[in-house]
Amino acid sequence: MPLDLTGDPADLTAALVDIPSVSRAEAPLADLVEAALRAQTDGFEVVRSGNAVLARTRLGRDRRVLLAGHLDTVPIADNVPSRRTEGPHGELLHGCGTVDMKSGDAVFLHLAATVAEPRHDLTLIFYDCEEIAAEFNGLGRIERELPDWLAADVAILGEPSDGYIEAGCQGTVRVRLTATGVRSHSARSWLGKNAIHALAPVLSRLADYSAREVEVDGCTYREGMSAVRVAGGVAGNVVPDAAELDVNFRFAPDRSLAAAVEHVQSVFDGLGMDVTVTDGAPGARPGLTAPAAAELVAAAGGARAKYGWTDVSRFAARGIPAVNYGPGDPNLAHTRGEHVPVSQIHQVTDVLRRYLTGRPVDNR
Amino acid sequence: MPLDLTGDPADLTAALVDIPSVSRAEAPLADLVEAALRAQTDGFEVVRSGNAVLARTRLGRDRRVLLAGHLDTVPIADNVPSRRTEGPHGELLHGCGTVDMKSGDAVFLHLAATVAEPRHDLTLIFYDCEEIAAEFNGLGRIERELPDWLAADVAILGEPSDGYIEAGCQGTVRVRLTATGVRSHSARSWLGKNAIHALAPVLSRLADYSAREVEVDGCTYREGMSAVRVAGGVAGNVVPDAAELDVNFRFAPDRSLAAAVEHVQSVFDGLGMDVTVTDGAPGARPGLTAPAAAELVAAAGGARAKYGWTDVSRFAARGIPAVNYGPGDPNLAHTRGEHVPVSQIHQVTDVLRRYLTGRPVDNR
Repeated sequence: MPLDLTGDPADLTAALVDIPSVSRAEAPLADLVEAALRAQTDGFEVVRSGNAVLARTRLGRDRRVLLAGHLDTVPIADNVPSRRTEGPHGELLHGCGTVDMKSGDAVFLHLAATVAEPRHDLTLIFYDCEEIAAEFNGLGRIERELPDWLAADVAILGEPSDGYIEAGCQGTVRVRLTATGVRSHSARSWLGKNAIHALAPVLSRLADYSAREVEVDGCTYREGMSAVRVAGGVAGNVVPDAAELDVNFRFAPDRSLAAAVEHVQSVFDGLGMDVTVTDGAPGARPGLTAPAAAELVAAAGGARAKYGWTDVSRFAARGIPAVNYGPGDPNLAHTRGEHVPVSQIHQVTDVLRRYLTGRPVDNR
Repeated sequence: MPLDLTGDPADLTAALVDIPSVSRAEAPLADLVEAALRAQTDGFEVVRSGNAVLARTRLGRDRRVLLAGHLDTVPIADNVPSRRTEGPHGELLHGCGTVDMKSGDAVFLHLAATVAEPRHDLTLIFYDCEEIAAEFNGLGRIERELPDWLAADVAILGEPSDGYIEAGCQGTVRVRLTATGVRSHSARSWLGKNAIHALAPVLSRLADYSAREVEVDGCTYREGMSAVRVAGGVAGNVVPDAAELDVNFRFAPDRSLAAAVEHVQSVFDGLGMDVTVTDGAPGARPGLTAPAAAELVAAAGGARAKYGWTDVSRFAARGIPAVNYGPGDPNLAHTRGEHVPVSQIHQVTDVLRRYLTGRPVDNR
């Protein structure tokens, strides 16, 4: 059955949820999205790239707004097809992808079909494989193969943000601390040097660490440094000669990646640990002072800091202000009980319609 | 080729090493040991039990001395057949089992064939599967199936002790400490409670722990408390809600197992950790004041504390004074480079001959 882009975006969300699209198996959904865009929108160039669908206008507007959402979901957990319940604050739509992020996709598809004269040029990207390893990410593929499609003055990712504009993102750096010792039989422990015991001062510094809170471009960021893995031990009767601890530092976007690494090293300074950086990604400043972004914030009535690392950073790295803005509580993403308030789907639709048309919305 | 029990016990050691007998594959060696005991000793009742061989006299002596050694070895590591080299302090015999413990077996077999009129009744037990999980231990099987064979006034295990009498043994107790927390995304670490960080004070107490040194029955024991395993972590971007630490306490035999457990709990008192005992075995007091044991100590010129847990404890649990006494440096056991000084095989043979005959030995 073809998708109806022009009806209620909550109904469209339900229709999208009812077509399973676990990562790498997005083809049936991508086919329907492509067909619907070709049939139900005007003035869009539509392109297919693998399991991604791209569409854009060329109206010659001063600014271009990019709307992007991934079509894939995590594996289904007995939560497809969608169903509706009545909650204390209104109707809820339940099912895999209702939050992450078929409700966001539905809003974008609905706007593409129903905003007749946008005041900005529009680019829509519906992509694949966001929920699996970064190397497979469809937006990454588009960035490599069709980079001109990412040109925009502001990018809006429809990731769940509970109906708030979330801007920028934290950076992340992971380090591995390795403690070394001397192996011995635990019956003669004084002949050895216990590498697990050597982690004591490291863990104490982590436990005592005071995380910084800082305002960047009007958004407040709170940092955090967390042990995320510890491992050590040879056998139940052996003093171990090695132990390792993985630490993840999430930092505000006023630090560069290099400055963040330096900060982590300074925290463990003087403990004689081998500290190796295993992974890192820079943060992104909110960048909400750019005109196209400021307009969006005004339409939504404010913005808050984004904490997690999302595809927003790809745009930030290209100098494009980017925000997350979508229906649904991000804490419900990837859970069996994933659900979204229907009213939030309408609210996000209305805000974006106001932003794209410059006109007040008649509140249904 | 049959074993020659009457020649040089170093040659006999080499012959035993040249017949592979990795745990569970002791049958060919047990066959030869049984045949040699039947053919080359007088006055012994010889019994076969699986891959174990037992022999005992019934001379009506006041006291009975039990000599026990396991026939099995750890897996061969390119170190069979045996070979000899000349070291700075005399000849060395190399090969799998030269230390652990075919040299001890050879001494016992040689004495059984060459001590014509022992002043004590003798029991010999050559058993299987000592080097693998305790449930398969041949001495344990004999204890269950032929318990009267373990009756003795003193038991000598030929485990490598570098030619010293090693008496008693440490006890051991293992506990698992479990820290709990609250899981959260590491980008919002303040919403979680990091269970790995909660190990900081536990590791500090271990690092600061002062181990006791105590004399028991004339032997000095040194205790030790060691972290032997640490594990925690959910994913690289998650504040973990659980972490666990395994601690091994090796304690002097003046503490009971229950008292040792209580001591471990007191060390971690007040940290709010869940402490579970996962494994424990009591220590054994040296018990060298019993007459048959005191004679042996006199013959060897002294005794020292045994640290590791060995089959000695089985006898101690039955109220039988028991010691380890055998050629070879225990630190070389289970190593590719396992080797024993030939002179130590002779020395142990001479001391035990003096003990069993009550006569001075002509030093070859």
